[in-house]
Amino acid sequence: MKKEDNQKEENQLQELLKRYMEISSKIQHYREMAGLAHWDMATYAPKEGRNIRSEALGTLSTEAFKMSVSPEMQHLLGEFSREKYYNELPEKYQKSIEKDVKHLEKFQKIPEEEYRDYVILTSRAQNIWEKAKADDDFEIFRPYLEKIVDFNRRMSERLGYEGHAYNALLDRFEEGMTVEKLDAIFGELKEGVLNILNKIQNASKKPNKRLESVKLPVEKQKILSEKILKKIGYDFECGRLDESIHPFTIGLNPKDVRVTTRYQEDFFKTALFGTIHEGGHGMYEQNIPMELFKTSAGSAASTGMHESQSRFWENVVGRSEFFWKGLLPEFQELFQEEVKNVSLEEMVEYINIVEPSMIRVEADELTYSLHIILRYELEKDLIGGKISVEELPERWNEKMEDILGIKPRDNREGVLQDMHWAGGMIGYFPTYALGNLYALQLTKTLQEDVPEFNSHIEHQNFAPIKEWMVKKVHHRGSLRTAEELIEEITGEGLTVKPYLSYLDEKYQKIYQY
Amino acid sequence: MKKEDNQKEENQLQELLKRYMEISSKIQHYREMAGLAHWDMATYAPKEGRNIRSEALGTLSTEAFKMSVSPEMQHLLGEFSREKYYNELPEKYQKSIEKDVKHLEKFQKIPEEEYRDYVILTSRAQNIWEKAKADDDFEIFRPYLEKIVDFNRRMSERLGYEGHAYNALLDRFEEGMTVEKLDAIFGELKEGVLNILNKIQNASKKPNKRLESVKLPVEKQKILSEKILKKIGYDFECGRLDESIHPFTIGLNPKDVRVTTRYQEDFFKTALFGTIHEGGHGMYEQNIPMELFKTSAGSAASTGMHESQSRFWENVVGRSEFFWKGLLPEFQELFQEEVKNVSLEEMVEYINIVEPSMIRVEADELTYSLHIILRYELEKDLIGGKISVEELPERWNEKMEDILGIKPRDNREGVLQDMHWAGGMIGYFPTYALGNLYALQLTKTLQEDVPEFNSHIEHQNFAPIKEWMVKKVHHRGSLRTAEELIEEITGEGLTVKPYLSYLDEKYQKIYQY
Repeated sequence: MKKEDNQKEENQLQELLKRYMEISSKIQHYREMAGLAHWDMATYAPKEGRNIRSEALGTLSTEAFKMSVSPEMQHLLGEFSREKYYNELPEKYQKSIEKDVKHLEKFQKIPEEEYRDYVILTSRAQNIWEKAKADDDFEIFRPYLEKIVDFNRRMSERLGYEGHAYNALLDRFEEGMTVEKLDAIFGELKEGVLNILNKIQNASKKPNKRLESVKLPVEKQKILSEKILKKIGYDFECGRLDESIHPFTIGLNPKDVRVTTRYQEDFFKTALFGTIHEGGHGMYEQNIPMELFKTSAGSAASTGMHESQSRFWENVVGRSEFFWKGLLPEFQELFQEEVKNVSLEEMVEYINIVEPSMIRVEADELTYSLHIILRYELEKDLIGGKISVEELPERWNEKMEDILGIKPRDNREGVLQDMHWAGGMIGYFPTYALGNLYALQLTKTLQEDVPEFNSHIEHQNFAPIKEWMVKKVHHRGSLRTAEELIEEITGEGLTVKPYLSYLDEKYQKIYQY
Repeated sequence: MKKEDNQKEENQLQELLKRYMEISSKIQHYREMAGLAHWDMATYAPKEGRNIRSEALGTLSTEAFKMSVSPEMQHLLGEFSREKYYNELPEKYQKSIEKDVKHLEKFQKIPEEEYRDYVILTSRAQNIWEKAKADDDFEIFRPYLEKIVDFNRRMSERLGYEGHAYNALLDRFEEGMTVEKLDAIFGELKEGVLNILNKIQNASKKPNKRLESVKLPVEKQKILSEKILKKIGYDFECGRLDESIHPFTIGLNPKDVRVTTRYQEDFFKTALFGTIHEGGHGMYEQNIPMELFKTSAGSAASTGMHESQSRFWENVVGRSEFFWKGLLPEFQELFQEEVKNVSLEEMVEYINIVEPSMIRVEADELTYSLHIILRYELEKDLIGGKISVEELPERWNEKMEDILGIKPRDNREGVLQDMHWAGGMIGYFPTYALGNLYALQLTKTLQEDVPEFNSHIEHQNFAPIKEWMVKKVHHRGSLRTAEELIEEITGEGLTVKPYLSYLDEKYQKIYQY
């Protein structure tokens, strides 16, 4: 009898799992289509069609949302949570279900209509933001941003939090992250970065800036971008590279992961490092195992861990001397008409010039984190109700002067520079700085495991490095939270030190302070 | 009391309409997203991602299908059909509801699972067809085509028909069209075309073929294609031009209507006329009134009527002497390095060379219809069970020899040349020939209404011509069937004569027979 009972339970569990995967697949299909619509709107969609597309996007995202909090999903998750079932489940289902339960508990409190309105609002707001930025007109964007901030304030109340209201939003992108933790981490980071900045500014050595005045034709920059992506291991059979105003990576499914970049003739660092950056994100998405696909364990561990991959390739690899030792001959050949005799020293100095500047995406590796800290402080105060959207441009400019010591001439190089808030991504920016920290923690362990690290980079033999990341990070999907994963890989929780040591060592060498 | 009753009924009707439009909008959104996925798969999607995308497409199309035959839709349509409501409805709702009722009656008999499998099958079959064509390997495509034909046979039984089973499939694309009507129409058309072909082949005058050996760089062909699209009135703010193996037009919404073309360096007629052709389709989609959008009256009158627009611009306008009188100077300038001193006579002769050939999409205007008649006869016999998929390649080759007097060397220039069957479009081909007939019926009336027709074309003043088409055809959406519309505009039903007269007159002038 016991055996029969077991068999019966096993059958029931299989039935439940089948239904669970049907719903999960459907949710994935809707999200995939919504993702495609996002990509399309940012790349090729004709201008006039976008407003109508936003509605379709709203419908689709809302349907996916509804399924994720539907009574049937609640029932299934309830069943799976029963001990007799839960203990029988393979790990991937356990993790997927845990994530779904958490999502359900939080998001079932968001009314469907409100969710839909918000998707449409943020989709349209991105169009308006583009215009506002082009015309330096914060006022046309303000009502949209006010609605977005209001929604996020309400959402944080609904999702629930301990401590600061902003914690609820942080947790959406970086599970378990809080204002309390970030204040400490960013405090240490800010101090460390400002300290190095100070040494650099007082160093007698000044970097060679000849390359600043060089113009490289966009067509040739495209060739270089594609070349590098292929070299580092981004798979073009499962992806593509396009242009967009704001570069991004979107994983529609593991076999269709698209990256975009932006070319500037008179500032080739934008496309060069932007492409490598997105390539890092892209490789993460391309290497999440098909086995986890469609389950909630089939995504990155966190937004910050995602960023660790892009930062690692962009900075640790792409801005290193070893990387340019290998790449320089090809660079010289490709651009022989535009740049004569560019030396390794000159290139490494140029790509590592440190100088406080207005635009985050063009910032050097050192001051980049300061831009993030600025946004973090503003977002925290916006959600906490300490400042209003109306006063945001002024607060931005003040903080810019306070932290980076420079003041924007207009809102284009101030509060309007990024599209994240238009897209409703509040709580997202901090993960950019966390990515830097994770990246250097990973690098430390990677260099222990692969001692020929620098030599591999110099010889453009990126496979062993990529494979390490695939095995340690990508293949884990979100079977682990970022916190668990960094502990699992490095034996240590999130920490600022490796990043600061790396920066200090690097700039010490270049600026000879 | 009477007044209050009326008010109550009016309120109920408004409630019903509101709900009807909610469902209709949702269906439109799903179809729009599915359309975007189609476009993407044909243009930019990375190879490896397509199989997974097919599944998502299947899910979305099936959901749209389910909504269109759902119990709630049935209930609403039942309510609207009651006299007290129906008579109160504006025309656009009446027509939309009539179409929906017809769709419901037919398609509710198709099981949802079968529909979904079919969408996925035809989406994948298009990938397989591409490979089969590239490798000249009918056998890998055969099992897919067998399943597609089987599904269509079953579908025709389920949809119901009078007379031939193929009628059920014809009606999907051209309401009211039957084998009985087509046999007569195509009989007359075939005889007329063969008669003219005979005169041409016996004429002593032979066209100048110098341009056949000319190669035009793809980049310049692109410039020309875009230029012409703009000139004739295709709106790039609400559309775009890309490349795909099989050119097509897709109207995602009236503000986002995309066309594709195909460039061949050594055969510039492909892109040139392909682009104008799709531009004709595109203008139709772009000018269906927003007022009809999301209702079932917000589409073209029929597939044949759609084709009348592409054929009109491609052939009646694009292959005319007047068109080239206007365009030639620009053509000469753009291609001055490749073609010296091309004369008007030479160009007009070249683009109107008549010669039986293998590939439908590269066929001349005259023999084009024969390609269609061949496919019509094969489809009819496939669905009627007279021939099998296995023997299709052989039947194709026999018919080719029988009708056009030439024999394909392989299946690439035979049965594998078109992607329509892979996409499940059986019953579609005949509308290509009907388009030619409608186009010339429309032209006749247009020339009466706009007597400066030829002069406008010569002076590249296409606006009055486009406006006539917009007003008479595009603005009507599907408030009329094609049959009703052609009668309304020209005072006459579908007829072959204007087309044959036009051809005879045109070729008589060129070939001087």
